[in-house]
Amino acid sequence: MLIIMKPDHTQEDIDRVTSHIKTLGFEPHVLPGEQRVAIGITGNQGPVEPSPFLGMPGVADAIRVSKPYKLASRAFAPKNFQMKVASENGSTVTFGDGHFVVMAGPCSVESEEQTLRIAHAVKERGAHVLRGGAYKPRSSPYAFQGLGIPGLEILKKASLETGLPIISEALDEESLEAVAEYADIIQIGARNMQNFSLLKKIGQLDKPAMLKRGISATIEEWLMAAEYILSQGNKNVLLCERGIRSYDKATRNLLDLSAVPVAQELSHLPIVVDPSHGTGRRDKVAPMAKGAIAVGAQSVIVEVHDRPHEALSDGPQALLPEDFAEMMRDLRKIANALELKMN
Amino acid sequence: MLIIMKPDHTQEDIDRVTSHIKTLGFEPHVLPGEQRVAIGITGNQGPVEPSPFLGMPGVADAIRVSKPYKLASRAFAPKNFQMKVASENGSTVTFGDGHFVVMAGPCSVESEEQTLRIAHAVKERGAHVLRGGAYKPRSSPYAFQGLGIPGLEILKKASLETGLPIISEALDEESLEAVAEYADIIQIGARNMQNFSLLKKIGQLDKPAMLKRGISATIEEWLMAAEYILSQGNKNVLLCERGIRSYDKATRNLLDLSAVPVAQELSHLPIVVDPSHGTGRRDKVAPMAKGAIAVGAQSVIVEVHDRPHEALSDGPQALLPEDFAEMMRDLRKIANALELKMN
Amino acid sequence: MLIIMKPDHTQEDIDRVTSHIKTLGFEPHVLPGEQRVAIGITGNQGPVEPSPFLGMPGVADAIRVSKPYKLASRAFAPKNFQMKVASENGSTVTFGDGHFVVMAGPCSVESEEQTLRIAHAVKERGAHVLRGGAYKPRSSPYAFQGLGIPGLEILKKASLETGLPIISEALDEESLEAVAEYADIIQIGARNMQNFSLLKKIGQLDKPAMLKRGISATIEEWLMAAEYILSQGNKNVLLCERGIRSYDKATRNLLDLSAVPVAQELSHLPIVVDPSHGTGRRDKVAPMAKGAIAVGAQSVIVEVHDRPHEALSDGPQALLPEDFAEMMRDLRKIANALELKMN
Amino acid sequence: MLIIMKPDHTQEDIDRVTSHIKTLGFEPHVLPGEQRVAIGITGNQGPVEPSPFLGMPGVADAIRVSKPYKLASRAFAPKNFQMKVASENGSTVTFGDGHFVVMAGPCSVESEEQTLRIAHAVKERGAHVLRGGAYKPRSSPYAFQGLGIPGLEILKKASLETGLPIISEALDEESLEAVAEYADIIQIGARNMQNFSLLKKIGQLDKPAMLKRGISATIEEWLMAAEYILSQGNKNVLLCERGIRSYDKATRNLLDLSAVPVAQELSHLPIVVDPSHGTGRRDKVAPMAKGAIAVGAQSVIVEVHDRPHEALSDGPQALLPEDFAEMMRDLRKIANALELKMN
Repeated sequence: MLIIMKPDHTQEDIDRVTSHIKTLGFEPHVLPGEQRVAIGITGNQGPVEPSPFLGMPGVADAIRVSKPYKLASRAFAPKNFQMKVASENGSTVTFGDGHFVVMAGPCSVESEEQTLRIAHAVKERGAHVLRGGAYKPRSSPYAFQGLGIPGLEILKKASLETGLPIISEALDEESLEAVAEYADIIQIGARNMQNFSLLKKIGQLDKPAMLKRGISATIEEWLMAAEYILSQGNKNVLLCERGIRSYDKATRNLLDLSAVPVAQELSHLPIVVDPSHGTGRRDKVAPMAKGAIAVGAQSVIVEVHDRPHEALSDGPQALLPEDFAEMMRDLRKIANALELKMN
Repeated sequence: MLIIMKPDHTQEDIDRVTSHIKTLGFEPHVLPGEQRVAIGITGNQGPVEPSPFLGMPGVADAIRVSKPYKLASRAFAPKNFQMKVASENGSTVTFGDGHFVVMAGPCSVESEEQTLRIAHAVKERGAHVLRGGAYKPRSSPYAFQGLGIPGLEILKKASLETGLPIISEALDEESLEAVAEYADIIQIGARNMQNFSLLKKIGQLDKPAMLKRGISATIEEWLMAAEYILSQGNKNVLLCERGIRSYDKATRNLLDLSAVPVAQELSHLPIVVDPSHGTGRRDKVAPMAKGAIAVGAQSVIVEVHDRPHEALSDGPQALLPEDFAEMMRDLRKIANALELKMN
Repeated sequence: MLIIMKPDHTQEDIDRVTSHIKTLGFEPHVLPGEQRVAIGITGNQGPVEPSPFLGMPGVADAIRVSKPYKLASRAFAPKNFQMKVASENGSTVTFGDGHFVVMAGPCSVESEEQTLRIAHAVKERGAHVLRGGAYKPRSSPYAFQGLGIPGLEILKKASLETGLPIISEALDEESLEAVAEYADIIQIGARNMQNFSLLKKIGQLDKPAMLKRGISATIEEWLMAAEYILSQGNKNVLLCERGIRSYDKATRNLLDLSAVPVAQELSHLPIVVDPSHGTGRRDKVAPMAKGAIAVGAQSVIVEVHDRPHEALSDGPQALLPEDFAEMMRDLRKIANALELKMN
Repeated sequence: MLIIMKPDHTQEDIDRVTSHIKTLGFEPHVLPGEQRVAIGITGNQGPVEPSPFLGMPGVADAIRVSKPYKLASRAFAPKNFQMKVASENGSTVTFGDGHFVVMAGPCSVESEEQTLRIAHAVKERGAHVLRGGAYKPRSSPYAFQGLGIPGLEILKKASLETGLPIISEALDEESLEAVAEYADIIQIGARNMQNFSLLKKIGQLDKPAMLKRGISATIEEWLMAAEYILSQGNKNVLLCERGIRSYDKATRNLLDLSAVPVAQELSHLPIVVDPSHGTGRRDKVAPMAKGAIAVGAQSVIVEVHDRPHEALSDGPQALLPEDFAEMMRDLRKIANALELKMN
């Protein structure tokens, strides 16, 4: 923590700051500068709360020097985290450790027939995990809200038939219980990134979770949200970049690929990229998936639908199975070039 | 709904679109333009889902012409809404109908002594509603999370002593039950604006709610979130502008005062402005509160603390009681000039 | 300047930093923290360039403690600046010192007849300065680009007839020469806020200038741009907030009224607000102009047109003369309430 | 153009709109919708100006259906553009047509010794074009502004010694004349993207130009700026994505890699990515350069400095020669995998 004093501060203002630092049991260091005086703090064993200082007369700013998260930080866990996920009857999928994982499937589970059809289509073309939504967060109360538990039962059937582990979204405590029972990875959507009650509940489960970045979350806030899960004991967290809000409406969201190397510098957790929500446009999904593997992401999650104009949600961003096959071919070429495993 | 075709579309692409429109029971209108062909739809009694069209070959865009919300819209409820709130033993406060309401109090309920002291201070200086948080949404799991039910009991005592109605935030289903029992207005924070499960629960209550705008929510998304509450039967909704995310870090958030006249054009619901969170800086609260009344807001909500450097949260943005008194004097001058009631 | 070291820095890294600080003739202060080591610098008589430090191994960040501008800062010029502008034959207008100035007129000078008509209309309703564009910066090369010198001659005629001083935009060196000859205040548009060559040229003139904030400029960058003018000797600078870029397309730009008190804290220069470009919508101009005076701006600049659907540019945001009259009445009420002079 | 009427419009409002459309010589098509009435326009041979309609009573919106640029659009020039650039004595470099071009060099030309040293370093490691700034746009008037013509002479010498063509930035008319004489590609910086006078001047030259995207420009505005150059006759335009402004300060700018496939869909012009300015951090440059080639960019431009902590500008984002060599190796691997030429 560094306290910056205003140009017109008085000696009394400085004394008030240093005295409060001493009260906290720490040591103040007054640093006179050309235009401004700064006061450093040492001796603290954890982050110092800036609020009291910011409220004092003569104080211009309080700059935090340490990171506010711990368990999510590379300083705490320097080695890249590896996360293994297995379906009930299938092989194990590894996130991290030189693997590149592709998760694919429909946006929403609409029917058993549709889901099984698409599950087999993505399995045949090399997907490692099956995605599908049984609970859908929709901006409008009048839009399709998902099939609920019957949807999860359909996903389970698709998993047993294809051997693929399942990822599916939980929206609230009620759906969390159901999703945790059926799915192999629990997805937390962008709108729930700061639903702290839900994050704590997930932290108490023994189930991998994928935490999407909030639509205008900083990378620091995203890691703080992961900290909510980690701090309750659940270490199996994937981070998912899915596009942030921008002033340009050329794409649905602005897929921030630079978040991948930035988050990887700060945290040991594996990073997934979602180019489907990240762009909202089918023909932009494959280019951005290729970008994702090249910048160093450990995984991508994409929407696939064989009849997108019948889809009940997000049809315009779903890849057709043949588009998906072509994307997989290109991803394999880049994986080979960069010596990543992708089988 | 207007379907825009790509420059290189084929006649077959047009036929596919018009045929799908007919399947839905509506009527297509092909409009050949200079560079692009557009297809209009008539005969629909509700919004048409754009997804199926966006997924079709040859289609460039599908532009929605109607608004996606209904109960929150002025088209549905042309007259400004009036909302009356009363404390157990106090007088009634009216939002709308030419009144300007000031809500004030500490960010967090920290102790009975602190809360009563501040409650009396704001009551004496003319506040109409007492604010105070018993459940605090914090970005870090290690920060102070609020006193919970004991905090609500303290607020109740302060309400009975001062006669002021109470507003307090609910974070999740558990805290919602408690807040609904003790408080007169339920606050829903920016991070929960799209916690749709929580919104639906509030919609089933018979209690006024104040819905804060999400940190990067469009005004349309904000009204859609209000629609989640209204669609369950609860008509008593206040909208609260509290600052949005910006690239400039000069203030904590960017208080969007233009959202007030824009939302008022689109909706009949009263608008509250929160200049404390909206700027994060004590000396900017009063100027922006004056701006809020001048642009036409029905209310402001501000944080007041008599010992801000002891505050457990948000001290730097809390007004001192004497700042609050000065702000009230200035607000009264402007209210008089604009013929608004403020007692 | 404060240098923050990475968690895994070596003693050698620290030595390299401290040695470079000594080379610069300053004094390093190593401050060991809980998680990070910081190194303060004292003894410097001006800002220290952060780049060399940021390039060194083991360095995580270099935090500037002082402001990068000088002449534009309140630290340098604590007293509010007053700026007087006079037309050739009219009375003097004062910016600052308790006055509130209204500048009004058409977006573009389209013809003599149109300009004289509107000039008289705004003069009769109480405007203090006449605005009008002879050179128009247009996003498209195919849009109307302004009348040029004949437009300035028309403005001059309108000034002589009404006694109102003129403000008009200069786009480049060529138009600057012409505008400086005819107009009383030179406007620099948002797109040119960082056209440093143009700013330097204006700094060498003896003519007031109004510098619009760039469409995504921070307040600091805006003051740095003002510094370019001030550093060349021209002290007569007005700052103009005209809306910044936002993710929400409900208004053309997002008018940032909080920039007014923030810039006023940092700088002594008077602030103008442009609610016409700031919202892009006629019915939002008056509410935001009222907000501008209430938050403490010294002036507003608005577009007025008596036949907006014939306007060659920006018709949708132009006030009708009767709207303008109503806005003036409301502004006068607020000015009286806040004891500002507005005649 | 599609005119959307307000819910409360009158028949008279509709008649006014249709009558104005007929006055323009076009044909109106009234489309009654469930909640809103829309009016389509056909028969126009170019874009219709929305302003007059937006100013009419009863009109809610006017939606443009066609693109506002022409020469920069793929509709006009469907085939990918190829651009050849040659130095005075070196081989020819091709942008487009399956080539991937790497431009590299120091941010600023600081001295002959420094520039020659770095020029040879990047040439030996495989760069195709030498970058270097002789005129520097700096936010502060007190920062290093570049060597000017002596800097261009140094660059020329480096070009003759290495055979590499040169790219260098022009800031204004004066520097444009000099840069056009010495350099092989004229760079227009982000701050000048809407300096329309400068763009027109470049359009009259017979010299390739690289147009950087403005710091908060939409892709449409960027293409409109390119249109300013193209409309004057100069067809040799490269577009350069260099990062846009974001709320997250984790990187200097937010490098928008999705702009590459989006701009490629809309325009035939080759796209360059600048990961140095796009991230502002040395260790993020190589990952984002790999992302750039994978998403389909035709070129990258990076800053290289062998003594970055001595650099007069942007040292923290400069690659060391050994970092550059490693990036080149990785880019070659991906180029091979994607069958791109990179010699």
